[in-house]
Amino acid sequence: MRIGVDGMGGDHAPGVVISGVVQAAREYNLDVVIVGPEDALQKELARHKSPPKNIQIVHASEVIGMDEMPVVSVRKKRDSSINVLVNLAKEGKVDAIFSAGNTGAMVCAATLGLRLLEGVERPGIAIIFRGLEGTAMIADVGANIVPKPKHLLQYAIMCDTYSRYILHKENPTIALLNVGEEETKGTEFVKEAHQLLSASKLNFIGNIEGRHIFDAKIDVIICDGFIGNAVLKVSEGIAEAFATLLRREMNKNIFRRAAGLLCLPAFKALKKDLDYSEYGGAPLLGVDGICIIGHGRSNAKAIKNAIRVSNEFAKNQVNQHIVEAIRIFDQTLPNGQR
Amino acid sequence: MRIGVDGMGGDHAPGVVISGVVQAAREYNLDVVIVGPEDALQKELARHKSPPKNIQIVHASEVIGMDEMPVVSVRKKRDSSINVLVNLAKEGKVDAIFSAGNTGAMVCAATLGLRLLEGVERPGIAIIFRGLEGTAMIADVGANIVPKPKHLLQYAIMCDTYSRYILHKENPTIALLNVGEEETKGTEFVKEAHQLLSASKLNFIGNIEGRHIFDAKIDVIICDGFIGNAVLKVSEGIAEAFATLLRREMNKNIFRRAAGLLCLPAFKALKKDLDYSEYGGAPLLGVDGICIIGHGRSNAKAIKNAIRVSNEFAKNQVNQHIVEAIRIFDQTLPNGQR
Repeated sequence: MRIGVDGMGGDHAPGVVISGVVQAAREYNLDVVIVGPEDALQKELARHKSPPKNIQIVHASEVIGMDEMPVVSVRKKRDSSINVLVNLAKEGKVDAIFSAGNTGAMVCAATLGLRLLEGVERPGIAIIFRGLEGTAMIADVGANIVPKPKHLLQYAIMCDTYSRYILHKENPTIALLNVGEEETKGTEFVKEAHQLLSASKLNFIGNIEGRHIFDAKIDVIICDGFIGNAVLKVSEGIAEAFATLLRREMNKNIFRRAAGLLCLPAFKALKKDLDYSEYGGAPLLGVDGICIIGHGRSNAKAIKNAIRVSNEFAKNQVNQHIVEAIRIFDQTLPNGQR
Repeated sequence: MRIGVDGMGGDHAPGVVISGVVQAAREYNLDVVIVGPEDALQKELARHKSPPKNIQIVHASEVIGMDEMPVVSVRKKRDSSINVLVNLAKEGKVDAIFSAGNTGAMVCAATLGLRLLEGVERPGIAIIFRGLEGTAMIADVGANIVPKPKHLLQYAIMCDTYSRYILHKENPTIALLNVGEEETKGTEFVKEAHQLLSASKLNFIGNIEGRHIFDAKIDVIICDGFIGNAVLKVSEGIAEAFATLLRREMNKNIFRRAAGLLCLPAFKALKKDLDYSEYGGAPLLGVDGICIIGHGRSNAKAIKNAIRVSNEFAKNQVNQHIVEAIRIFDQTLPNGQR
């Protein structure tokens, strides 16, 4: 397997990207291709003692910034690390690609460059997170902010497949994010999606309210990309706010500071509980290729794990299984809905 | 002032409701009318030593459960505490009403019974919460899940007025919840709302991403009711999950339990920081009357504070100011948009 990595993607690129790549190349014995300005990448790589031989650099002269407009930057910066990376995948020179850079640009470049899997109508980003009852997926979190109900059904199918082959879940439970649990709740759009999911052979258990995303025993949560994006970002925001408040309270006087020191092991364990970097990035499901997107703030460990996941994605032929699953579902749809 | 309270509203009714009412009647020297089955309410009231004289009970024979379908239950249970409460407001027998019961039923009964303020097209629920930089409001969180862009403008106007007269903010900053900060981001719906807000004379500062709801210096956040509801519930869910994880980690061994005991003051302070019961319920903005909705899990303190807020809402004539503000805004709109 050969994994392509955007050397310039993320808030701490290229430093942490190279560190993560070096760790992954050593630990998993994988070939990794890093894409970006050759000089900058060589320099970073040289910081590591005897960097593994299975790391190769492919030059790209431009970089798409984290805040640039996706469509515009992908079209204009033809030699950006993201575009060059996608081209490597297109030409079959790598088996999977990963970037912690501009998410919108990655979605756009991958969709334009790799096209969609047979039968898939829209790509979707799935986040894997750890709730109180284990890992779960939520999709879409922002690739498609004005989806049709059928797109939500397809996200459910794709997440079902991913959960089976990558997360090793036997019969993943699937729920639809809604304002209430009754099937009569929500907008017309959500009600239609509910009908499609109910009629499918997926293990669909109905609506879920936002309150239970983290404490329910549910493997896959489906929603439109606008809401998914809002939910994801609010979750990040509140976790940070909670940590800030806890820190503030712990620092209010010397007794609390002392007590806080004693609690450090527990706080560190808590931080690890919440550490998304274990799950190694978010798959962009539906494109005809393997594309994993990392958080802009990814550290070396997150990069390393994302490379591991990219490898598993390729090895387990998830995309072939998705195409097969979509085909079977489409055959069961009445003519008008195909 | 005379405040009407749904004696049967909330997960812990009527016990905590009566406790909250007794505290409020004593502390604020207000007249309170409690609505519900007379026997049950009398019995609860009798538990309190020498209950204040300014508490009156009005009988209602039925109760709308927390999980009942709003429209159906409001129409069928004519003698439910919520319907009787709304009728008291309609007949001018109370100046404001409060319920911690079925939110949807309260929205439905209040909208049907009290009608809307002149010029207001849809009611909206606003939540007041404390972020890292102080209190802020978010609306709508579920009254209107398929709003038009103009409804969002009206929510902004109503929250602006509420922030000025109840939260004593001089020139409240207003932001629109979106998937990105640039004004070109989001769905057509959000873009239209952005245009209306930009063209208004409100202190509109543009889009806000979910990440910054809790750490930004923003007074009012506007969104559609579906997303607002999801965001609200996800926030609750993650705060609880965080607390559960912290407890789990603190209980893992005897050293951590001991350290945790030393940290109790800080944990308690943190809990207080996050305690929504200080803010006393969510105003249902836009109805021609004063209607405050409480969280189902409201404790006595939350009930007491909600009664205080209901009183302030009435005293400060917020609704008159809203009607005036909406009228001025409507006059500035081009003909087609009025």
